Amino acid sequence: MTGVLYGVGVGPGAPDLITLRAARLIEGAAVIAYPTLAGAASFARAIAADLIAPDAQEIVMDVPMSVERAPAQAAYDKGAAAIAVALDAGHDVVCLCEGDPFFYGSFMYLFARLSDRYRVEVVPGVTSVTACAARAGLPLAARNERLTVLPGPLPEDELRARIEGAESVVIMKVGRHLPKIRAVIETLGLTSQAVYVERATLPEEVVLPLARAPESAPYFSMILLTKGADPWL
Amino acid sequence: MTGVLYGVGVGPGAPDLITLRAARLIEGAAVIAYPTLAGAASFARAIAADLIAPDAQEIVMDVPMSVERAPAQAAYDKGAAAIAVALDAGHDVVCLCEGDPFFYGSFMYLFARLSDRYRVEVVPGVTSVTACAARAGLPLAARNERLTVLPGPLPEDELRARIEGAESVVIMKVGRHLPKIRAVIETLGLTSQAVYVERATLPEEVVLPLARAPESAPYFSMILLTKGADPWL
Repeated sequence: MTGVLYGVGVGPGAPDLITLRAARLIEGAAVIAYPTLAGAASFARAIAADLIAPDAQEIVMDVPMSVERAPAQAAYDKGAAAIAVALDAGHDVVCLCEGDPFFYGSFMYLFARLSDRYRVEVVPGVTSVTACAARAGLPLAARNERLTVLPGPLPEDELRARIEGAESVVIMKVGRHLPKIRAVIETLGLTSQAVYVERATLPEEVVLPLARAPESAPYFSMILLTKGADPWL
Repeated sequence: MTGVLYGVGVGPGAPDLITLRAARLIEGAAVIAYPTLAGAASFARAIAADLIAPDAQEIVMDVPMSVERAPAQAAYDKGAAAIAVALDAGHDVVCLCEGDPFFYGSFMYLFARLSDRYRVEVVPGVTSVTACAARAGLPLAARNERLTVLPGPLPEDELRARIEGAESVVIMKVGRHLPKIRAVIETLGLTSQAVYVERATLPEEVVLPLARAPESAPYFSMILLTKGADPWL
């Protein structure tokens, strides 16, 4: 009997925003897996740390920092091969994913490599999008409103065009792109409707009007733009 | 001491996709609240049923079926008043919300009525969007891709325009709008990339290529349109 690969969303950061299903799978896992970036600690592993059995085998896929795609591809090839060995030995493997596995997550690279040969189950998680809205006290979308999710690294012109035609907007992966994004929002006259959120649901969380956001932002930061629909109904 | 109002996301349907925090709050709640639509059973309450204390007080806000907004507004006024009585008496109140409270949820109407006078905490939940993607085996967005969420009731012309300029698209609240949405997607030549998902994560779940979707869809159904990015990296 080969094992099952579980892609498990561990939510936005607070350990108790893990789902009951994810917690049960992580607690019972003899083998866990997760990617790291250029040797840095894994955020997903930190979120789930208290649930991981002390004797669990850990498959770490270290992805090098590079604009080229080949080195990362090789890291996922190697990780997929190590996971396949565990699955072939009859072990289930629980892959830890920040937020949700299929929402800007690297789990899709393992899914692409392994789902044709093994049973793969994806356990959805709470995304940083709704976590940031909860912490900012800002309803994201209601009734027939549209919601647009944009990655911060998009070129300035494209960001401007996409924000201009939108209703509620979430800008992910702000990080070093903050000055560019801030300028676009300022040009569109929307700064007063923009909220900056950093490390939502963690003790070091920051929630500020964009006008008062810091000069430099970490990777795990987001900007919410809501156009102030009447929330009374 | 007045109580705290918790807006608690209970996730997309499977009871074990409730978060640890939400489960703890629901189990400990002396007073729970939730809306119902025209006397029908509450989906949110059904998801959380096994966690609700047998002697919990239940504040039910019955929202009448109406295209007018005033009757629903009156129902939330009345519900907010009942919740305020419990909060003033020192009880915390846990309001159950399908999916996430601030993602197309009615909790925003209570938040608007009560957050100026009471402490309100929003507990984010797993949305139907990532739940549907997980069940369909379809990564939603990666790297610098955009994601657009559209409500199915939007007019045909607007749906077409918004889908045409988009990358990944999620169409919510499909229900009786299925024939219109199907026609738009067919016109755009995107039917082969569209997946229909009904009641994701529940035992009666349906996942089908849009071409094989049923003629009539329940309210809790969704269409995912992904444009087939190369998932290898």
